[in-house]
Amino acid sequence: MKNIFVVGVGLIGGSFALDIKKLNPECTIYGVDNNEAHLDEAITLGVINEKAGFNDLEKADLVIVAIPVDATLSVLPKVLDAISDNAIVFDAGSTKEDICTKVKNHPKRRNFLAVHPIAGTEYSGPSAAIHGLYKNKTNIICEVEETAFKLQEKALKLFADLGMRIRYMNPKAHDKHIAYVSHLSHISAFMLGKTVIEKEKNERDIFDMAGSGFESTVRLAKSSPAMWTPIFEQNKTNVIETLNEYISNLKHFKSLMEDGNFEAVYNEMETTNHIKDILNGIQ
Amino acid sequence: MKNIFVVGVGLIGGSFALDIKKLNPECTIYGVDNNEAHLDEAITLGVINEKAGFNDLEKADLVIVAIPVDATLSVLPKVLDAISDNAIVFDAGSTKEDICTKVKNHPKRRNFLAVHPIAGTEYSGPSAAIHGLYKNKTNIICEVEETAFKLQEKALKLFADLGMRIRYMNPKAHDKHIAYVSHLSHISAFMLGKTVIEKEKNERDIFDMAGSGFESTVRLAKSSPAMWTPIFEQNKTNVIETLNEYISNLKHFKSLMEDGNFEAVYNEMETTNHIKDILNGIQ
Repeated sequence: MKNIFVVGVGLIGGSFALDIKKLNPECTIYGVDNNEAHLDEAITLGVINEKAGFNDLEKADLVIVAIPVDATLSVLPKVLDAISDNAIVFDAGSTKEDICTKVKNHPKRRNFLAVHPIAGTEYSGPSAAIHGLYKNKTNIICEVEETAFKLQEKALKLFADLGMRIRYMNPKAHDKHIAYVSHLSHISAFMLGKTVIEKEKNERDIFDMAGSGFESTVRLAKSSPAMWTPIFEQNKTNVIETLNEYISNLKHFKSLMEDGNFEAVYNEMETTNHIKDILNGIQ
Repeated sequence: MKNIFVVGVGLIGGSFALDIKKLNPECTIYGVDNNEAHLDEAITLGVINEKAGFNDLEKADLVIVAIPVDATLSVLPKVLDAISDNAIVFDAGSTKEDICTKVKNHPKRRNFLAVHPIAGTEYSGPSAAIHGLYKNKTNIICEVEETAFKLQEKALKLFADLGMRIRYMNPKAHDKHIAYVSHLSHISAFMLGKTVIEKEKNERDIFDMAGSGFESTVRLAKSSPAMWTPIFEQNKTNVIETLNEYISNLKHFKSLMEDGNFEAVYNEMETTNHIKDILNGIQ
């Protein structure tokens, strides 16, 4: 693969660019982005080699679409329109059903692989791009059977070179489960941050009282609203379901406290301690 | 200070023991704990030098009480009964009002300093004790004026040697604000863990989908129920208040999603992004 195009030169696209360049020093990384300042920054930082436009996509061997999921719905069909028959295109969005539906009948559907790398940080933009972001991370691939076998192979070789492990799912199941293990965490962090800021807005010194526990729990509240708003919009039904269950669990915990039933409060926590084993499984 | 007693040889007491021994290699660290296995483990790990009992406390120069806050209510008066007039005793509990009230009229009240070091990890027991836990951490001291000046000085010298920064508060204000920046984070993490475990209990593979974001947000759900249940019990009123506000914010976010008002969803997150500046202040 010689000509690699990254549409969206932020954290996700930029981190792919850095590692692909390292794996294939002879390739050229082209950046496509409607934010001109990001393209300039990406060149300065060595994340991409050159700026490019949709007209250049015909020479692409690989196109990575790493933009907010609402933009992907309009941009991905245009990318598929512009590429040659031999190019492989994958996205990196945190929702999969709407995107798969959108390109279901596109004449170049078999050039597209629906991908969700479970990797990232709370930072965004080209300066957030880092080497090794994808090493040992899970990569979820949806509707793999809809992608041409030879192009699947190319993409899977790349993911293997990056050190990723692959999981196959259908888009509906992906969106349902990712609402629990990713989207809900973001809302719980944002609302924790909001609750504390509202309460303490006139007492800045109070944040001296906050330790690493608060910092860890609220970390995702630094995330980009431009990225997360369309994710919540596309995954609205599933996310609302997780919120209902989360709110219900919080209310139950509160009612146990109100009743002075601290044996039950203890049990709630002890049962959930089991998360240790699960998290050990992640690492 | 030659004879240092640590009542409760877990993460908090053990970490004090390790650093105090490093600062004063000639001192002897005595461990007091009703868990005999923990005492043996603490000796093996080099966290303490010797086991001891309440009868030995009369020779103490310093006693650190680092046990669950409900146990502190019964143990602290006994410690004060047993010490000499020249000993300084401090606790490390995450609630301060009940403890200060409990010893308010104790004849040795002036030997006690009410302390809350904002430091810890999600682990517990002697093996969780680490060097340097308190470096650059905030240490909240309550009712400092109730402690004899010479004994205050001893404790403050120690905290300075450990690299801690001091904040003075009254116990009521401490308990109110710590409910927001610490206690609520723990409940939000425990209930997030519960919500995900309940949903996904039959689908262990799903946790392959969980990334570092989920891990960070749910980390505190590994915490010890034995430590946290009495904290929630003692700080019940404040914690319930924070839960009401947190639940109300979550419901509001959900209703914005249900109404399809994603501009407002964006604004909710953008406003809370300000947490970045606050967290930068912590670090």
